[in-house]
Amino acid sequence: MRLLVVNPNTTVAMTDAIAAEARRRARPGTEVEAVTAPWGTPSVESHAEEALAAVATLEAVAARAAGGAVDGVVVACFGDPGLEAVREVSPVPAVGIAEAAMAVAVTLGHRFSIVAARDRARPLMVDVVRRHGFESRCASVRTTGLSVLELERSPDVAEEAIVAAAQRAVAEDGAEAICLGCAGMAGLDERVSARVGVPAVDGVGAAVKLLEAVVDLGLTTSRAAAYQPPERKPLTGPPSLVSALGG
Amino acid sequence: MRLLVVNPNTTVAMTDAIAAEARRRARPGTEVEAVTAPWGTPSVESHAEEALAAVATLEAVAARAAGGAVDGVVVACFGDPGLEAVREVSPVPAVGIAEAAMAVAVTLGHRFSIVAARDRARPLMVDVVRRHGFESRCASVRTTGLSVLELERSPDVAEEAIVAAAQRAVAEDGAEAICLGCAGMAGLDERVSARVGVPAVDGVGAAVKLLEAVVDLGLTTSRAAAYQPPERKPLTGPPSLVSALGG
Amino acid sequence: MRLLVVNPNTTVAMTDAIAAEARRRARPGTEVEAVTAPWGTPSVESHAEEALAAVATLEAVAARAAGGAVDGVVVACFGDPGLEAVREVSPVPAVGIAEAAMAVAVTLGHRFSIVAARDRARPLMVDVVRRHGFESRCASVRTTGLSVLELERSPDVAEEAIVAAAQRAVAEDGAEAICLGCAGMAGLDERVSARVGVPAVDGVGAAVKLLEAVVDLGLTTSRAAAYQPPERKPLTGPPSLVSALGG
Amino acid sequence: MRLLVVNPNTTVAMTDAIAAEARRRARPGTEVEAVTAPWGTPSVESHAEEALAAVATLEAVAARAAGGAVDGVVVACFGDPGLEAVREVSPVPAVGIAEAAMAVAVTLGHRFSIVAARDRARPLMVDVVRRHGFESRCASVRTTGLSVLELERSPDVAEEAIVAAAQRAVAEDGAEAICLGCAGMAGLDERVSARVGVPAVDGVGAAVKLLEAVVDLGLTTSRAAAYQPPERKPLTGPPSLVSALGG
Amino acid sequence: MRLLVVNPNTTVAMTDAIAAEARRRARPGTEVEAVTAPWGTPSVESHAEEALAAVATLEAVAARAAGGAVDGVVVACFGDPGLEAVREVSPVPAVGIAEAAMAVAVTLGHRFSIVAARDRARPLMVDVVRRHGFESRCASVRTTGLSVLELERSPDVAEEAIVAAAQRAVAEDGAEAICLGCAGMAGLDERVSARVGVPAVDGVGAAVKLLEAVVDLGLTTSRAAAYQPPERKPLTGPPSLVSALGG
Amino acid sequence: MRLLVVNPNTTVAMTDAIAAEARRRARPGTEVEAVTAPWGTPSVESHAEEALAAVATLEAVAARAAGGAVDGVVVACFGDPGLEAVREVSPVPAVGIAEAAMAVAVTLGHRFSIVAARDRARPLMVDVVRRHGFESRCASVRTTGLSVLELERSPDVAEEAIVAAAQRAVAEDGAEAICLGCAGMAGLDERVSARVGVPAVDGVGAAVKLLEAVVDLGLTTSRAAAYQPPERKPLTGPPSLVSALGG
Repeated sequence: MRLLVVNPNTTVAMTDAIAAEARRRARPGTEVEAVTAPWGTPSVESHAEEALAAVATLEAVAARAAGGAVDGVVVACFGDPGLEAVREVSPVPAVGIAEAAMAVAVTLGHRFSIVAARDRARPLMVDVVRRHGFESRCASVRTTGLSVLELERSPDVAEEAIVAAAQRAVAEDGAEAICLGCAGMAGLDERVSARVGVPAVDGVGAAVKLLEAVVDLGLTTSRAAAYQPPERKPLTGPPSLVSALGG
Repeated sequence: MRLLVVNPNTTVAMTDAIAAEARRRARPGTEVEAVTAPWGTPSVESHAEEALAAVATLEAVAARAAGGAVDGVVVACFGDPGLEAVREVSPVPAVGIAEAAMAVAVTLGHRFSIVAARDRARPLMVDVVRRHGFESRCASVRTTGLSVLELERSPDVAEEAIVAAAQRAVAEDGAEAICLGCAGMAGLDERVSARVGVPAVDGVGAAVKLLEAVVDLGLTTSRAAAYQPPERKPLTGPPSLVSALGG
Repeated sequence: MRLLVVNPNTTVAMTDAIAAEARRRARPGTEVEAVTAPWGTPSVESHAEEALAAVATLEAVAARAAGGAVDGVVVACFGDPGLEAVREVSPVPAVGIAEAAMAVAVTLGHRFSIVAARDRARPLMVDVVRRHGFESRCASVRTTGLSVLELERSPDVAEEAIVAAAQRAVAEDGAEAICLGCAGMAGLDERVSARVGVPAVDGVGAAVKLLEAVVDLGLTTSRAAAYQPPERKPLTGPPSLVSALGG
Repeated sequence: MRLLVVNPNTTVAMTDAIAAEARRRARPGTEVEAVTAPWGTPSVESHAEEALAAVATLEAVAARAAGGAVDGVVVACFGDPGLEAVREVSPVPAVGIAEAAMAVAVTLGHRFSIVAARDRARPLMVDVVRRHGFESRCASVRTTGLSVLELERSPDVAEEAIVAAAQRAVAEDGAEAICLGCAGMAGLDERVSARVGVPAVDGVGAAVKLLEAVVDLGLTTSRAAAYQPPERKPLTGPPSLVSALGG
Repeated sequence: MRLLVVNPNTTVAMTDAIAAEARRRARPGTEVEAVTAPWGTPSVESHAEEALAAVATLEAVAARAAGGAVDGVVVACFGDPGLEAVREVSPVPAVGIAEAAMAVAVTLGHRFSIVAARDRARPLMVDVVRRHGFESRCASVRTTGLSVLELERSPDVAEEAIVAAAQRAVAEDGAEAICLGCAGMAGLDERVSARVGVPAVDGVGAAVKLLEAVVDLGLTTSRAAAYQPPERKPLTGPPSLVSALGG
Repeated sequence: MRLLVVNPNTTVAMTDAIAAEARRRARPGTEVEAVTAPWGTPSVESHAEEALAAVATLEAVAARAAGGAVDGVVVACFGDPGLEAVREVSPVPAVGIAEAAMAVAVTLGHRFSIVAARDRARPLMVDVVRRHGFESRCASVRTTGLSVLELERSPDVAEEAIVAAAQRAVAEDGAEAICLGCAGMAGLDERVSARVGVPAVDGVGAAVKLLEAVVDLGLTTSRAAAYQPPERKPLTGPPSLVSALGG
């Protein structure tokens, strides 16, 4: 199968890291096609940036997935920006890395904590937990104090900060598993697991595997109500967006 | 005070109706400035359209509110698209019509129901209730079967459909108040109240009044975490957006 | 419009302070008529005192509001004592200062904390949050250790204690806004906001504004079920109560 | 032991029926002393009447329980009016018939329904479920359409209406046990159980037994916070109340 | 009446202690018959041990209760292992010590905390709270760090550890009552209450009393759905189990 | 990888069907080893049968998984009997078919409904939803009225009943996806999806895929607290159990 992995921010190095992690986790026979958000910001750390990322992700998916060129879509930013919108416009199933990480984590421990980037991400994380309905399984949200790009650029510094936050989550909050709450942490799951002593789940890997599962099961997004394709309506706006969404 | 009321869709006639309702409800001394989404779709009825509307609303607000030209912002679409993002970029407080309608409704009855446009809006309404935390006060979401534009264009047809749905909500779901779940229903609150026999709350009016209250109280958005202004980062994308958000 | 603001305790100095704050927040054209509970205790800090305050408030409202003499009622004690009962007997809408403070606070931040008087108020505050359905938006209840009357009599001491509690709520509990959880804190909102750095909402001001909003919108209490006027029945009891409620 | 059973309304015939049921359920050695609310309304069916009943109950309990004359208090109205206040002023433990009925019902079935008097009682019942924290165990609230006094005066009519409502709760709502949601239904539990085929729990009996249990266990109300005795303060008001509460 | 109290673990000394506590709490006329799990482990501290204990308890109950030999069943392990299964096979009502302790505790304070044995019990306790629906009334789960058998064998050491944990629950978590979260703590309730200053509820005593209440009320398990007796089916397995359950 | 799929009931034909479905869904390179519960009942439809099934499953897993002979375990009964216990004794990760079906379903629609076997299964299904924390995503539980063995033996009859129940869930409850709530429905997912028009998720397939994902990600059960291996203790009981669990 062929999976489209969208990096909702504009940092190509981050797309590359996400793609590498996605490919490392993909099973034989799964091809990963990674795309960078066509526009937006180099990292997504606020509601405003999430809003931009949602539309840029939507544009990227619409441009690529419409023709059946891929079998599934991963939205690779821990806030799952635009995920529900992507489900509407994509003929193939879509999975977000936050929902995937949580879906895996709940099979491993009684409660999980999310370790996110900066403090300002905490309410966004609380909301993504609630949006997907995992609030009774989430012990806490902890933060590293590092920005997304700092996490991405300095894996060693990132690892120390993540381990410290995760250890506090285990010791003080009752966490039994850790969700790495930022795509910039991709690839650190094994080291964090080893050092903290509880499983750490990377959303990119989790999403690739969960999506493989959905595709293998022959399932796709329900069209009953929430994810019905948007009606065709006159669409105005940025040309690339109009072109992709077929206004 | 001067309030910016943003219609997140591109239908100018709907902006006009919203503006008229906002002005009708504003207290003496409140000026209402209404703007239409600079781009997007003529109505917002899906997650994808909400995503577009969020960014178009953000652009409209950033273009207008940044310089302190207004004292508050109303997002006038019942899904409150982009509301949290608007809070980040706006120096003045922002209120959504869904949250405002619900905040008013809970002072009037034990439980409220939302009467929305088409069936596909139901999950979006369920989510907006949950996002704002009103789930223990919401009796049900009922739908009219009419599109947003049908509601807007044919007030008589709209009224019949809304009344029928509201009556079912009262009789079968225990609703004691009704939230009119679409900006296209603006102005119908009094007739629906009179015919159904329970208060019907129009979000546009409610948002104008709630925002007047917040402004009069000298309050504005907290910058503690969730609504910190986005950091300045290189922003790419549609020129009007980049210009407004100052990438 | 004319609003009746009821102080549910018997301390006239507190009624005066509440009235001053209510008038400061009222818009031009709103007259505030403040009344003191006709009987009860000088402060309301326990369930028993709340029970008394509820009936005394009910008596005050019934005596005054029945003839259409006022356009709305504020119950000015943070436990909202008797609020639902007031809604039944009053022909005009009624708002409590706890529900109003919370309704405003949720438009300003992701989560709010309540700063209340003494430790024993904590469970009452937890219950008022739950009664109005704001539990998913409440970060914590913090207390000052001061009694209601100490707060009222020594604004400087009160301010220090409130600021200290609020700072802990922000730093440790994730509060992004503060609800001043006692009518005895009226008038301190601006100083607390300035010192703590997040918006502090005073319930008296919030209730006046929210009630102005409801009245301006032409809305009043639903009679569908919860707030139907009590049936006329033989009422016995204190003469002033029987006289007011028309037993 | 000696239990004080308070009928929070003023109907002496109802006190007698409650007393008879309480005595029928009391174990050997338990004496039941039943008192009628010293003032208020002949039935309690609204928030306003509940507020009056709370204070009248408080007065009755304070007048009687203070001197250690009884070992426990039952508040015998299904809204548990004034229960928390009673806990504060009473040196002995107190139980409400709603909480007791629910505590028993959850040992008998997966979900219970409450069958209440008139439709207007429904929101009050929903709130009493939530106040005591049983919402995940409550299948529904059904009503008979009869007033409290009609239930009390016409047991045959009452039985038919209760059975009909209970059967619907079992068939349509998944109820596995029924709480008789009105003290006026006391004594009908066995006939309802027999006819509906699921256990029906009468709150009066349940409260007497639960209170016997608490007393036998040597337990009494916690004074840690919520139920600390009210501080002594100057109390004004109806002489009987001031006398009882010792203002 | 005659109550069967099942100790779900295999430690006879613990059965004796449970029996002594049950008899101490039983009212005159209640006979207590205590049985030890016919097989399993000497203490129950994990999900696996709970699974074994559930079946061993089921076997013990089926062997004894089927013929109407007893009037009610207590499952005397704080995880309430097998309680719902026991309800199905027993013709008489059944109560677990966890649900009973919580049902009593909520009549005494606003929130309770559970003091459990070792840290690994915490998630099991969180789950038993949620299974019975008491999550809005539970302040926290605290642990002593001692194993079940250490608690049982060294009451003095146990008492110190329980008191320390309970004091933290009161001071830091807002607990107003304590549930002794292990049958090995039976008999320590009075000393813990006295030393901590809030009521401590022992589940064994609470269950005996709650069960006496249910039996006295003439109630038994609903057969509407959840607790219908299992259909007769070919049962294979350990001979004692097959014999007891009548495969 | 090699997965152990345990059928918790004793019906070998059902094990075969489950195995066939598991193998159909496994990716190349995954071997499925299916085992039948060593003892118990031919179907699991009650709490008592679930209790037996939990221990029999535990025995089967302990006998087989201990030596590292397999890479993961599927518990293939929709109540996930013994799942948490299996996690404790198994060195490799374990997934239940209920949790897996729900984890997949929430990526496909806004809300799912479970279609279960007989009416008596409804409360068990409600509890499994709550146990795994999916209650905010579950629209309803519907039942077919057929027993597990009827479902297994008569796929045509089963299909009609499932389709009818699923259609009602979609039309009346807002379901957008269906979880087939019984291992006896394995293999019917595609036909149900096609006929009902929303995705139907079979738990066996979903669990195999989710487990492949977990194994591929190199993750295993957290030993932080809930799923720590049981301590070694003297174990008595059925010889096969003692032998497997190493008492």
